[in-house]
Amino acid sequence: MPSDWCTLPISRRAFVVSAAATGAARVVAPGANAAPAAPTSPLSASAQSAELYVVGTRDGFSVQIGTLVSMMNYTRSVVLQSVRGLTARQLDHLHDPRANSVGALLLHLAATEVYYQATTFDDRADFNAAERARWGAAMSLGDAARATVRGHELAFYLDALAEVRATTLAEFRRRDDAWLARVDQRSPLAERVNNHWKWFHVCEHESHHNGQIAFLRSRLPG
Amino acid sequence: MPSDWCTLPISRRAFVVSAAATGAARVVAPGANAAPAAPTSPLSASAQSAELYVVGTRDGFSVQIGTLVSMMNYTRSVVLQSVRGLTARQLDHLHDPRANSVGALLLHLAATEVYYQATTFDDRADFNAAERARWGAAMSLGDAARATVRGHELAFYLDALAEVRATTLAEFRRRDDAWLARVDQRSPLAERVNNHWKWFHVCEHESHHNGQIAFLRSRLPG
Repeated sequence: MPSDWCTLPISRRAFVVSAAATGAARVVAPGANAAPAAPTSPLSASAQSAELYVVGTRDGFSVQIGTLVSMMNYTRSVVLQSVRGLTARQLDHLHDPRANSVGALLLHLAATEVYYQATTFDDRADFNAAERARWGAAMSLGDAARATVRGHELAFYLDALAEVRATTLAEFRRRDDAWLARVDQRSPLAERVNNHWKWFHVCEHESHHNGQIAFLRSRLPG
Repeated sequence: MPSDWCTLPISRRAFVVSAAATGAARVVAPGANAAPAAPTSPLSASAQSAELYVVGTRDGFSVQIGTLVSMMNYTRSVVLQSVRGLTARQLDHLHDPRANSVGALLLHLAATEVYYQATTFDDRADFNAAERARWGAAMSLGDAARATVRGHELAFYLDALAEVRATTLAEFRRRDDAWLARVDQRSPLAERVNNHWKWFHVCEHESHHNGQIAFLRSRLPG
């Protein structure tokens, strides 16, 4: 997969998506210029029901939350596509001594989502002790993650991502657009910050690190 | 700037933003744990008027388009922060023979936005001849960009980004949420694709490559 794959004009891209675009989705990229699956294909049917390329409302969510969920679904599907088929050894590989492994970056995405769950669903300023014990190293990346986030198969990371995302979606279903627009009155920043920005950040933050994952994957040994 | 800077919990981040968050914005990161600028600072006042951390409606745009613009403003501000102060030589540097330069990645962001202008504002399937002549190499990245996108100061790239973004915002002001939700009836994909996805993709695509820019910047020689 070229590092610039996601930038190809959509008319030159063709994806086959193999599952609903929740945290558990697996996405298969047959490669640029491959023919899209026929509409009768079960894979294509799943992709169509997921509507990964249609940003907009989603059943069970308020208008703005559902629209955000549609963005999060698409973005997650791209991350899952980027890491498809990686071995434990590849997930642990360090491009250079300062690099983060792909596995650590994946767990970092889950950790970040847990952090924003705490700040937006539970109105806390940081992880609690249990969260810090489980997610602290992945949240920090760098030395802490290089030392402790390793030796896992891909399923370990995908399960963590799916588990955390399921919590996010369950909480989103209980909330409305007024909650999403709410400004954090306790933020230490001079700038105003709202829940919508925080969850958009969780989403675009996946793209940020997925750019790194694509770069690192394309330079794996062998 | 650590490669994971954007993932820091917001309570540990402090930014000072020096201009409105259009394509011409410049963002200054004093570093994690730095104190936020006082509210009386001109810089902070600009940041507050830009509301970079408030996703939501914006004056002059329909509800969903304005919300998307708020996301695009934030994301662009992060890109500009990532490249702040880079020299022409640094913008040309190649991490390895297959890498894209930071300069090429910046122009690629502008090229991608021009492509999606063509597909959504002009209902074309691809660049026209003039667009291809100006943006084709940056759109393709790789060999074409390594050969031709080089030797420019940072202002060249920032001007291109600002120029393209100004066109996007002018066109957005003339459109409404029904247009944003519209599905592309000519898409060759099996999946449905709408304008909202296309412009969300332009936005998160900046995050994707900004992850690479941050990685590459942190590994520049010297």
